[in-house]
Amino acid sequence: MHSWVDGLPADALTLGSRGLAYGDGLFETIAVRAGQPSLLTYHLDRLALGCQRLAIDADHPLIRDEVCRYAGLLGDGVLKLILTRGDSQRGYAPAAGAPPRRILQASPAASYPPQNAEQGVRLFACQTRLAEQPLLAGLKHLNRLEQVLARAEWQGAEYAEGLMRDVSGRVIEGVYSNLFVVRDGVLYTADLARCGVAGVMRAALLDEAPRHGITARVVDLALADLEQADEVLLCNSVYGVWPVRAFASLNWSPGPLTRKLQAIARTLLDA
Amino acid sequence: MHSWVDGLPADALTLGSRGLAYGDGLFETIAVRAGQPSLLTYHLDRLALGCQRLAIDADHPLIRDEVCRYAGLLGDGVLKLILTRGDSQRGYAPAAGAPPRRILQASPAASYPPQNAEQGVRLFACQTRLAEQPLLAGLKHLNRLEQVLARAEWQGAEYAEGLMRDVSGRVIEGVYSNLFVVRDGVLYTADLARCGVAGVMRAALLDEAPRHGITARVVDLALADLEQADEVLLCNSVYGVWPVRAFASLNWSPGPLTRKLQAIARTLLDA
Repeated sequence: MHSWVDGLPADALTLGSRGLAYGDGLFETIAVRAGQPSLLTYHLDRLALGCQRLAIDADHPLIRDEVCRYAGLLGDGVLKLILTRGDSQRGYAPAAGAPPRRILQASPAASYPPQNAEQGVRLFACQTRLAEQPLLAGLKHLNRLEQVLARAEWQGAEYAEGLMRDVSGRVIEGVYSNLFVVRDGVLYTADLARCGVAGVMRAALLDEAPRHGITARVVDLALADLEQADEVLLCNSVYGVWPVRAFASLNWSPGPLTRKLQAIARTLLDA
Repeated sequence: MHSWVDGLPADALTLGSRGLAYGDGLFETIAVRAGQPSLLTYHLDRLALGCQRLAIDADHPLIRDEVCRYAGLLGDGVLKLILTRGDSQRGYAPAAGAPPRRILQASPAASYPPQNAEQGVRLFACQTRLAEQPLLAGLKHLNRLEQVLARAEWQGAEYAEGLMRDVSGRVIEGVYSNLFVVRDGVLYTADLARCGVAGVMRAALLDEAPRHGITARVVDLALADLEQADEVLLCNSVYGVWPVRAFASLNWSPGPLTRKLQAIARTLLDA
């Protein structure tokens, strides 16, 4: 399916894009099922927060409308929305009045091995650390070299994801997922005030947890929390929830809370 | 003058560019005078170092050749070179064998007010701090949201540049310049092992200093070092050297070492 730029079919972007020059923009990766964008409100809320933090003056109703129309045409697959601050001349100062630019791209539905969700995945221990930058923490912005470096640390299918820590050693997230650990029936995930991407599936699971009688806490996580975890799981807005079955010398079996969250994620993605 | 992509005139970039998706690439901003790219070896050395750190397998002789040809056609102005990891499908893992992409863009010669170089500039105190990420420190990569946020902190012509500190409070650099301070006849500039862009004019001045009898040291700088400075100056590869005449409540007059470095920078740019 053709990409759209500002609502029109296009396959190219102007070279003056601040998205290219500085990574000056945001993106969302949205699962689309039967023409419906999953978790749309969560995606658009995070995008709006990003626009606020980066002072990008976007037309949010128009973005919502375009995403829905594009998803309708896509049917089943993955929709990637990139919002840049638009074009400008050389220099970090934005051009006055230059409108932000909306880019929509389609990919086929993700085809991960079914055993990722069933038996769980092995988690690679990335050496690449996340820098602590509270001004950008949580946002899904276009400055993603840390993830590129981390993802390049392993090849092949043995590891489905990599674990990223911050420069202080805290356990933060996967390269393209968020992480939860379960201990004594309580769900924990990393505080993303200093770094990390606040995934929409993470946000949705944190919202859903209490409705299903699950206590969830956002905390600073250390490697010791993995050692002491009864269950470890990953989530994102495309694949839902994967159990983690191995990390370094640690091993887990998919546990009851993981299976419960997996079912919740499935429902969220199909809603 | 038309931009080039991979050596051919072009005004657009494929939407699958990893430069857009992740800021996965590097850039150089090169002053061009009478068809000659200034400080070319410094620019290409930094680019090569960036390619090595990011594992981008570029054809460096080809890049040099293209930059020289483009500069020859440009005559006088500023040449911006962007090198991306090329295109790929969705996902942080690069496509196997996808060639890096070379983008050359032309701007008119910079037209800063002459008093910037003569009387010096006022330096804005940016609140945006630089995160500490040794893996990316020094590189002129395409992840520049910190600079975008910092540059947006002031408007108007009162301040020509902004001073950026790191999250630990160290004085690092300007938004688009490097900083030197002079005390008791010795030149100091910030160590860029944790963050910051290792500017080519900074590198060239550090190389030239001993040849002109100037002692130069790369150190950690604090705000106290500005308070105790006899002279403060900024440099970059387009404008050369500007004296700093004011920062917060501090004031300086352009001093002898600043004038000496200014002359050296002029020679470097004209060489």
